[in-house]
Amino acid sequence: MQDAVRIRREFLERELGVGLRHVGAFTIDIERVVQRNIENMIGAVQVPVGVAGPLAVRGEYAQGSFYLPLATTEGALVASVNRGCGAITRAGGAQVAILRDGMTRAPVFAAKDVTHAAAIARWVQEHIPALRSAAEATTSHGKFLGACASVAGTSVFVRMEFDTKDAMGMNMVTIASEKVAEIIENATGARLVALSGNMCTDKKPAAINTILGRGKTVVAGVQLDSGLIQDVFKTEPRAMAEVNYRKNLVGSARAASLGFNAQAANVIAACFIACGQDAAHVVEGASCMTTAEETDAGLQVAVTLPALQLGTIGGGTGIDTQKECLQLLGVAGSGDPPGANARRFAEILAAGVLAGELSLLGALAAGHLARAHKELGRGGAKQH
Amino acid sequence: MQDAVRIRREFLERELGVGLRHVGAFTIDIERVVQRNIENMIGAVQVPVGVAGPLAVRGEYAQGSFYLPLATTEGALVASVNRGCGAITRAGGAQVAILRDGMTRAPVFAAKDVTHAAAIARWVQEHIPALRSAAEATTSHGKFLGACASVAGTSVFVRMEFDTKDAMGMNMVTIASEKVAEIIENATGARLVALSGNMCTDKKPAAINTILGRGKTVVAGVQLDSGLIQDVFKTEPRAMAEVNYRKNLVGSARAASLGFNAQAANVIAACFIACGQDAAHVVEGASCMTTAEETDAGLQVAVTLPALQLGTIGGGTGIDTQKECLQLLGVAGSGDPPGANARRFAEILAAGVLAGELSLLGALAAGHLARAHKELGRGGAKQH
Amino acid sequence: MQDAVRIRREFLERELGVGLRHVGAFTIDIERVVQRNIENMIGAVQVPVGVAGPLAVRGEYAQGSFYLPLATTEGALVASVNRGCGAITRAGGAQVAILRDGMTRAPVFAAKDVTHAAAIARWVQEHIPALRSAAEATTSHGKFLGACASVAGTSVFVRMEFDTKDAMGMNMVTIASEKVAEIIENATGARLVALSGNMCTDKKPAAINTILGRGKTVVAGVQLDSGLIQDVFKTEPRAMAEVNYRKNLVGSARAASLGFNAQAANVIAACFIACGQDAAHVVEGASCMTTAEETDAGLQVAVTLPALQLGTIGGGTGIDTQKECLQLLGVAGSGDPPGANARRFAEILAAGVLAGELSLLGALAAGHLARAHKELGRGGAKQH
Amino acid sequence: MQDAVRIRREFLERELGVGLRHVGAFTIDIERVVQRNIENMIGAVQVPVGVAGPLAVRGEYAQGSFYLPLATTEGALVASVNRGCGAITRAGGAQVAILRDGMTRAPVFAAKDVTHAAAIARWVQEHIPALRSAAEATTSHGKFLGACASVAGTSVFVRMEFDTKDAMGMNMVTIASEKVAEIIENATGARLVALSGNMCTDKKPAAINTILGRGKTVVAGVQLDSGLIQDVFKTEPRAMAEVNYRKNLVGSARAASLGFNAQAANVIAACFIACGQDAAHVVEGASCMTTAEETDAGLQVAVTLPALQLGTIGGGTGIDTQKECLQLLGVAGSGDPPGANARRFAEILAAGVLAGELSLLGALAAGHLARAHKELGRGGAKQH
Repeated sequence: MQDAVRIRREFLERELGVGLRHVGAFTIDIERVVQRNIENMIGAVQVPVGVAGPLAVRGEYAQGSFYLPLATTEGALVASVNRGCGAITRAGGAQVAILRDGMTRAPVFAAKDVTHAAAIARWVQEHIPALRSAAEATTSHGKFLGACASVAGTSVFVRMEFDTKDAMGMNMVTIASEKVAEIIENATGARLVALSGNMCTDKKPAAINTILGRGKTVVAGVQLDSGLIQDVFKTEPRAMAEVNYRKNLVGSARAASLGFNAQAANVIAACFIACGQDAAHVVEGASCMTTAEETDAGLQVAVTLPALQLGTIGGGTGIDTQKECLQLLGVAGSGDPPGANARRFAEILAAGVLAGELSLLGALAAGHLARAHKELGRGGAKQH
Repeated sequence: MQDAVRIRREFLERELGVGLRHVGAFTIDIERVVQRNIENMIGAVQVPVGVAGPLAVRGEYAQGSFYLPLATTEGALVASVNRGCGAITRAGGAQVAILRDGMTRAPVFAAKDVTHAAAIARWVQEHIPALRSAAEATTSHGKFLGACASVAGTSVFVRMEFDTKDAMGMNMVTIASEKVAEIIENATGARLVALSGNMCTDKKPAAINTILGRGKTVVAGVQLDSGLIQDVFKTEPRAMAEVNYRKNLVGSARAASLGFNAQAANVIAACFIACGQDAAHVVEGASCMTTAEETDAGLQVAVTLPALQLGTIGGGTGIDTQKECLQLLGVAGSGDPPGANARRFAEILAAGVLAGELSLLGALAAGHLARAHKELGRGGAKQH
Repeated sequence: MQDAVRIRREFLERELGVGLRHVGAFTIDIERVVQRNIENMIGAVQVPVGVAGPLAVRGEYAQGSFYLPLATTEGALVASVNRGCGAITRAGGAQVAILRDGMTRAPVFAAKDVTHAAAIARWVQEHIPALRSAAEATTSHGKFLGACASVAGTSVFVRMEFDTKDAMGMNMVTIASEKVAEIIENATGARLVALSGNMCTDKKPAAINTILGRGKTVVAGVQLDSGLIQDVFKTEPRAMAEVNYRKNLVGSARAASLGFNAQAANVIAACFIACGQDAAHVVEGASCMTTAEETDAGLQVAVTLPALQLGTIGGGTGIDTQKECLQLLGVAGSGDPPGANARRFAEILAAGVLAGELSLLGALAAGHLARAHKELGRGGAKQH
Repeated sequence: MQDAVRIRREFLERELGVGLRHVGAFTIDIERVVQRNIENMIGAVQVPVGVAGPLAVRGEYAQGSFYLPLATTEGALVASVNRGCGAITRAGGAQVAILRDGMTRAPVFAAKDVTHAAAIARWVQEHIPALRSAAEATTSHGKFLGACASVAGTSVFVRMEFDTKDAMGMNMVTIASEKVAEIIENATGARLVALSGNMCTDKKPAAINTILGRGKTVVAGVQLDSGLIQDVFKTEPRAMAEVNYRKNLVGSARAASLGFNAQAANVIAACFIACGQDAAHVVEGASCMTTAEETDAGLQVAVTLPALQLGTIGGGTGIDTQKECLQLLGVAGSGDPPGANARRFAEILAAGVLAGELSLLGALAAGHLARAHKELGRGGAKQH
C-alpha cells in the first residue's frame, strides 16, 4: 500500500515537475485509509487544528466542559469561536436539546401516468410496516422511522427516515432504500429511476431539510447579561440584537436565503474536518437560524440547526488524527447506548456554533470586524 | 511557536486523559500557520489526498490535462470523480467558461424611516464613482466592479462587488467595504449596523448568489456519445438524461432546493480542503445546476456553478501541503496577469464537478449506487 | 342596508367628484353580502365571465364533462384555456387525483429559553389526542388530522391540520387553533404570541406548503399523441417538452422560484374570482409544478398543485353570481358525503390548470405567443 | 355581441339545467369587454366593493387623502384595512417611495454547447444599445431599461426590463422581446425556445423578483406612538413588534417562505380586482416584507413590496366598474407625465398594504383574531 501511494506520488512529481514532499509526510495508518477512505491516494494534506474552549454545555447527552477541535486555515476563526465559548461558559453554559434525529434517503420512481403515481404513493403510505421490515433486515443497528411519498407529475419520491445510531448513516440508509425500492417496484409496477431522487436532500441546500430536518435537528441557546456582554464583547445587548435582526433575519430574508445566521458554516466546517466527518455536509449546516432577543436581563441568543449530519463511527472517524479529535471531545466510537456518542457530539457542536454566532454578532456590533481581519493575520488588505 | 503548540497539546492530553500523538505529528511550517491560519493551535489533522485524472479541460484559462487533488475521507468519491474524468477526457475534454467574476460584501445600515432609506439607496446609486475611489484606495490589487442598494423597511443593504484577482478576496472586500460604509454614513446620515448584512451572502445558501453570482460563475459541459456512455457507464444517454431530469430537476424543485445537482458539494469540498480554500464556501458551491439533454449524438451534460469562491494566494494556500496541491494543478501563487491563476483553478474545478456529476448520474442510471457503497469500502451496512 | 350602501356611495361621489353609477348597478343580495362578505360597501365590480370547455375530467370525485367559468379582464386567457380543454377532451379527458387534503393553521408561542421550547414541542407531540378533542369540540364538521411542532430558538410553532370538508376552512381552523393554543399555554407555560405564526403558511409563497401541502394537493395529467398536438397546437411533442424543460424547470430553477409552471396562477385566479373563492389564495396555487415528457406515443403532461385552497360553502360562495358559477360546475353547497363537492371542484380546477399549461406550452413551442397578444385583443403594443 | 353572450349563456342554462340570471345581469359595456378582455363571455360576476379610508399618503406621486376600493368576498377584510388606514392617517400619513420601476420579460434560447451559451451571453451584454433600439422601435411609449443574460448549461435567458409608463406592460414587453429575440437569434445562432423562459418571472413566486424587482418596488412606512396604538389597537408597541418578529420574520423564515408579511396578498388581491388589474399578479405582491421595530417614540412599521405590477391603462382598467374604482383613487387613464398615474396608484396601494399589516399585527397582538372571525361575519365556526 505504502508503495502504491509512493509510486503514484512520484509519478506525479516527475510527470508534472512538482514536489509533493509534505503531502507524502503523513503518519496516519495507510492500510485502513486506502481500504475505506480514499482511492488513488498520494498522501495527505495537513489542516491546522486549534481548540476553542473550555465550552460549558448543558445538553441531554453532553454535560460538562469541552474543548472543540477546529481544523481550519482561516485565521481569526478559532479566536472568534473561543471568545464565544468564554462568554457561554461564564454565563453557565449553553442549553442544548435535540429535537429530532433521522437520516433520510428518497429514491425516485417513474409512474406510467398520474393515476399510477397517485396509486404508488398510496400504496407506500398503506404498507409502512412491510417497508420497515424490509429496511431493517438490511442493517443490524439502524431503525426505520418512517416514510413519506410525494408526487410530481409521473415522478414519485419516497423519503425514508432512519435512526442510524452513532453512524452518520448515509450508506446504511442507501442500502436499506435499495431493498425498499425493490419491494415498491414489485408491488406497484413503479420503475426505479434513481436511488437518490434529491428529496433526501443530500448536500444541497433544500427547504425540505430545514422544515422536516435531516440528521439531527438541534437547538442551543444561552442568556447573557449586560455586564458579561460589555466585558467580553465591548458592546450592549441591544446592539447585538439589532445586528442579528437586520443582518441574520431581515438581510437573509431579503437575499432569499435558506440560512439565517452569521457564520455557522465556518464552525461546522472546521469541526467536521477535524473530526473526520463528511465535509460536504456543511451545506446543510449552513441553514442554521440564529435568533437574538433583548430581555430584561440582557440578551437571549439561540441557534437552531435543522440538519446536522454527523457520526462517531464510520467515514473518516477512524483515521488516527481525526479519531484523536473525537477522543478530545470524548465521543469517539460507539456510544452507550448506541447513538449516545453521535448525539453528544451534535450537542457540543451546536453549542460551538452558538459560540461562533455570539462572537461574530458581538464583533459586528462593536464595529471591529474589518479591524479583526486586519490584525488577526488573515492576510492584510494590501497584500492580496 | 513549536513550544506553545506542544505545551497546549500536552495540557489537553493531561487534562482530558487523551493521546494526541498523530495530531502533533505535522510537518507544515508552524511559524507561518500560527501567524496566519490558526489560533490556539495544537497540531494538524491529516486528510487523505487522492487524485482524479487526467482530466482534459478546454477553458479560456485552463487548457490541457490536469490531475485534481481531492482530500476526503469518504470512500468511493475519488474513484467516482476519476471515472468521470476518464469519460470527459475520452470525449475530448470539458468546455469551460467563466461568465462573471466578483467577490461581494454588503453592509447593512439603519435609516431613520423609509423615506430616509430610499434617499440613502438613491445616494449610493448616484455616487458610484466616489465609492469606487474610496474602495480602491484600500487595496493595491482589487478593482471595484459595482454597488447595488436594496431597501427593506428601514434597513439599507449595499452589495459591493470587487475583482479580487488571485485572492478569494473576502478580507479585501471587507476592508474596502468598511471604508465605503464610512463614506455612506457621513454623507447620508445612515447608521452602519453591521459590515456584513447577509445580502453578500457569505456561506449561507442564498438565491441572491445563484442569481447574481458571487466569486466566479462558471459553466462546464461535455458531449458524450452513446458508445462512450456504454463503455464507461454501462448505460445509455436516455437513462442518464432521465435520472438528471427526475432527480436533479424535478426532485430538487419538489424539495424546494437551491441546488440542482447530484454531488457537486462532494467534489468542491474535497478540492477545497486539498488546496487550502475556505471549506465553508462549499455551501455556495452546492447551488450548482446540472443539466443533461439527450441529443442525436448522445448526451449533452453541463454544470453551472453560480458562486465559486476560491483563490491561489492568501488563506490556506501557502501552507506546505496545500501549496503542493495547488502546484500539482499548476495554479499556485499569483497569476500572470493577476487573476489568471484563480480563474484557471476555477475552470479546472468546474470540469471536476462535471466529472463527479457524470459519474453519479451514470451510476444511478446503471443502478449500482448501493452496490458501489457496499464494495468500495465506505464501510459495509452491517458494520454501522 | 341598500340605503347605507347608497348613502356611502353618494358621499364619495360628492366628496371626490366622481361617478360610481356602474359600481352601484349590482343585483346581488345586499343583505347577505353586507352581513358576511364586505364592510363599508359601496357596490360591486363586474368581472367579465367566459367559459372554457367542454373539459373532460376523469377524477375520483369529478367524472364527466365540465364548463369552467373564468372571471378575468385579461384578453386571450379564456381562449387559451379553452384550446387546452379541447385537447384534453379529445385525448379522452384529464386523469386527476387528490393526494392529500387538509387546511392548516400554526400559532406561534414564546418560550422562556430553548430548553423550554424543546419541552413545549415534545409536550405537543405527546398530547395529540387531547389536542384533537379540544379542536374538534369547536366545530361540528371539521376533523383534526394532526399537529406538528417546530422550534426556532425560543419560538415554537404548532402547525395543525384539519379536514374542513366543503369549506375552505380558514375560519374553522383559526377558531379550533385558538382553543388548542389555550390548552398548550396552560399545560406548558408557553406564551401565545400570535394565532397565526406564518408556518401555516397562508397567502405567502412558502416551501412548507409545496412540501407538506395546504388545502388540497392535486395532480392532473394527460397523454397527447403527436397527431392531436399537430392539429391543436401546430407543433410537436418534442418542441413542447423542450419548452417545458427549459422554461418551467430550468428557468424557474435559475430564478429560484417556488413555481415551476407557465400560467397556473392565471387559471386559478380567474376561476377563484368566478366562484367566490378567496382570491388571495392564488398565491399558493402559483406553486404548481408542470412536467412534460416525450413518450413513444407523444407527450405526457401533468400539473402538480401542492396547495389548492377552496370551498363550495362559506366565503363568497353564496353570493348570487358566484353561486351560479359553482352551480355551472355542479359543485355548489355541501357535498354528499361532506367534502365531496370541494374535492370535485378541486379536481375540475386542476384539469383546467392543465388545460392552461398545455395551451401556453403549445403556443410558445409554435412561436406565436407575441402574435396571440397582438391579435387577441389584449391591447396592441402601440396603444400603451 | 349582446346576442352572442346571451345565446351562449342560455345554451349553458339549458344544457346544464342551471340558472345564470345574475351572471347575465351586467351593465358593463359588452362591446369593449368582448373585444379586449374576455372570450366565450356569458356575463359577469359581481364582486362586492367596500372602501377603506380616508388614508393619508405622503408619497412622491400620491399626496393627500384617499379611499381605497377593495373588491372582496372575505368578511372582515375591509374593516381590518380600514382600521389600519385610521391609524396611519392619525399618525400623519404613510411615507412612501418607489425604489425602482421596470417590467420584465426573459426569453430562453438554446445554445449548441456551453461555449456557445457563454458566447451568446457575452454578445448580449456587448450589444445593449442595438437591443434597445430594436426594442423601442416596437412601442411608442415604452423605454428599454436594460438586459441581463444568465446561463444554465445550454440554456440562455435574457431578462429585459422596460419602463412601461402607465401600462402594466406585459404585452408591450412581450412584443418588444420578440423583436429582440429575433436579433439575438440572427446574430448569435441561438435558437429561441420560448419567448418567456420563467426568469421574467411572471405570476410565479420567485426570488429573482424579490431581489431584482419586477414592476414597481415600493416601500411604505409609518411611525406610530404608544398612545395611538393603545387607542386603535388596544395593545402596545412591544407586543406588535414581537408579533412581527416571531411571525413575519422568524415564522416565515422557518417555513422557507418568500413572503415575510401578514396579509399583503389580501389587500393587493382586493384592490387589483376592484381596479381592473391582472389578479394573478397578486402572487408577486405576496412576497412583501413587513418590518416593525420598537422605537423610543413607539413603533416603526414598514412594508417593502419588491414586485408590484399594475397599470392605469390597458387590461381591465377601461371596464366601466373598474374604471370608476380607478377614478375614485384619481388615477384612471394616462398620467401626466406618462407613468405618473401608475406610480400614484402603486404608492397608494403600498400604503393600503401597510394599513392591512398594521391592523392584523394589532389584532394578533391584542389576541382577538379568532374573535374577529367569529363576530365580523366571516361565517361562524359551527356553520361550516
